[in-house]
Amino acid sequence: MVSQLLSEQLKESANQVNALLNKIVGVELEPSFLYQASRHLIDAGGKRARPFLTLKSCELVGGSLEDALPVAAAIELLHTFTLIHDDIMDSDLKRRGIPSVHVKWGVPLAITVGDLLFAKVYESVLQYTKSNQLEPVKILEAIDLITQTTITICEGQALDVMFENMKAISEDEYLKMIGKKTASLLKTSAQAGAIVGGGSESQIKSIGDFAFYTGLAFQIVDDILGLTADEKDLGKPVGSDIREGKRTLIIIHALKNSNNDQKNQILATLGNSDASSKKIKATIEAIKRTRSIEYSMNKARSLSIKAKKRLSTFPDSQVKDLLLEFNDYLVKRKR
Amino acid sequence: MVSQLLSEQLKESANQVNALLNKIVGVELEPSFLYQASRHLIDAGGKRARPFLTLKSCELVGGSLEDALPVAAAIELLHTFTLIHDDIMDSDLKRRGIPSVHVKWGVPLAITVGDLLFAKVYESVLQYTKSNQLEPVKILEAIDLITQTTITICEGQALDVMFENMKAISEDEYLKMIGKKTASLLKTSAQAGAIVGGGSESQIKSIGDFAFYTGLAFQIVDDILGLTADEKDLGKPVGSDIREGKRTLIIIHALKNSNNDQKNQILATLGNSDASSKKIKATIEAIKRTRSIEYSMNKARSLSIKAKKRLSTFPDSQVKDLLLEFNDYLVKRKR
Repeated sequence: MVSQLLSEQLKESANQVNALLNKIVGVELEPSFLYQASRHLIDAGGKRARPFLTLKSCELVGGSLEDALPVAAAIELLHTFTLIHDDIMDSDLKRRGIPSVHVKWGVPLAITVGDLLFAKVYESVLQYTKSNQLEPVKILEAIDLITQTTITICEGQALDVMFENMKAISEDEYLKMIGKKTASLLKTSAQAGAIVGGGSESQIKSIGDFAFYTGLAFQIVDDILGLTADEKDLGKPVGSDIREGKRTLIIIHALKNSNNDQKNQILATLGNSDASSKKIKATIEAIKRTRSIEYSMNKARSLSIKAKKRLSTFPDSQVKDLLLEFNDYLVKRKR
Repeated sequence: MVSQLLSEQLKESANQVNALLNKIVGVELEPSFLYQASRHLIDAGGKRARPFLTLKSCELVGGSLEDALPVAAAIELLHTFTLIHDDIMDSDLKRRGIPSVHVKWGVPLAITVGDLLFAKVYESVLQYTKSNQLEPVKILEAIDLITQTTITICEGQALDVMFENMKAISEDEYLKMIGKKTASLLKTSAQAGAIVGGGSESQIKSIGDFAFYTGLAFQIVDDILGLTADEKDLGKPVGSDIREGKRTLIIIHALKNSNNDQKNQILATLGNSDASSKKIKATIEAIKRTRSIEYSMNKARSLSIKAKKRLSTFPDSQVKDLLLEFNDYLVKRKR
């Protein structure tokens, strides 16, 4: 259960970020089919978890909402651009319950939409130069952080693609990959907020560590939900990770702790894009018997605790409580 | 014929830019397969025409080579990233005489390579913050220019993709498309050099106009060479624009000025990805008979003259002569 306060604050911060996104990726821009395609995933919702982290991290170090908005919107644009390109790479047909951008507009335009939104990341940060609300050196610091993070995400994405074609991936390799592909962006979401909010170096480090470990836990839970949630809640088919041959923590643990029958069942569907729902269901049952889901959930919980400890240096406050509850929410969510 | 001075200067500026590219997209970076794929097109050569424009524009307004290098390398990275994504979108199998990135490493990795190089554009510009050789406000100005240009290029690319599925494209629509997709980057190449070199607003405008019209002429010549050059010089199959259904100026003029037989011949191969070399040859012959190649060449020449006039406000100098000769070279080249 999410507290009323967190629920309200999530909604409010999403509204604020959406207003800026609507300006930066305006429906009235030309050519209209390009901007319609660019708004497709933005309009489909999403939790806006990353910009929430940005806004609240800014607040935690004493900054104001206005200070954080351009960089919060930039982070959401960065996230959206990677989703659009990832969906092409993974041949994922659905996202947030609707057809992927490349399904609706074709691969060529979807590649361009991703590139456009990537450029809009910087356009969003550069709002600061127009409003004069942040010193140039700070703006450059935020741009540097976002740039280095995008490089890291691309490295993580390349590892993810490579792992699909490799047999033995270790738990450490998996954690390194999701660290780069997913957790680095949560880390940067928080750190960008702390930078524009005027946080000290040690504050920026602590809040970044909090968000990084939260991000690792978040991704592990995401992998679990991909097997255990309803398709309706998931917004995409159950078990698509299995069909795509993704080496998730669950799969790594299951392959190591399965008997021959279970292992054969898993390997028959892993990376088999044509596997039927029935076979995917049988694989999920086999995985459940290896207790890999409990194992992964425990790992996520311990990372969540590790994350929360990193906020101990901050004095108690309502925003700190919100960030701690937000961490719980990401780990305990059912969708 | 290119003068010895221009030939030497092109080589020297390419060497300087390549040295920085080798640092920013280093072979030693990890994961190595990602960085190898990222170096593929960079190592395959190319004229380095855009960074040359940057370096010489910087010099024209009194700046030094060192001032311009980070932004010149950034421009080449931006160009390279768009080539890699364009080759995926157009299913172009060769580039610079070697297999495209997606042919060698697959579409998923090639998308990531493009994204990585796009991020490296900003990493390159941010070299300035480390060296302290440029004021933060100027760095932000360069970043803003590059960002807006990338947005423009994406808009041009979207139009290019859309035009392939449309029957009647006017000459103006074509010029608008190549203005966004190609000429805008040449404009920015020159303007970025002038900005970091400390040029005045009117200097930045003039040099930008020079490069923009040069860019339009360059693209028209590129379209002509795609039909008339040898495959060896071209680095890709002759007539691939026809197979892809590209609406070039030549095609637009030919469709408007052909008799029924010629028109049928052109339409039978336009956008037909399976058209044989023999049929492509017959189409090129039909196009030649409509005199569309002369028409397009004349258009390129008049744009080239228009471009050169924009440099008249600069006092005579060796670097101005080089830029004027460079314009001629781009329009008169045979490959």
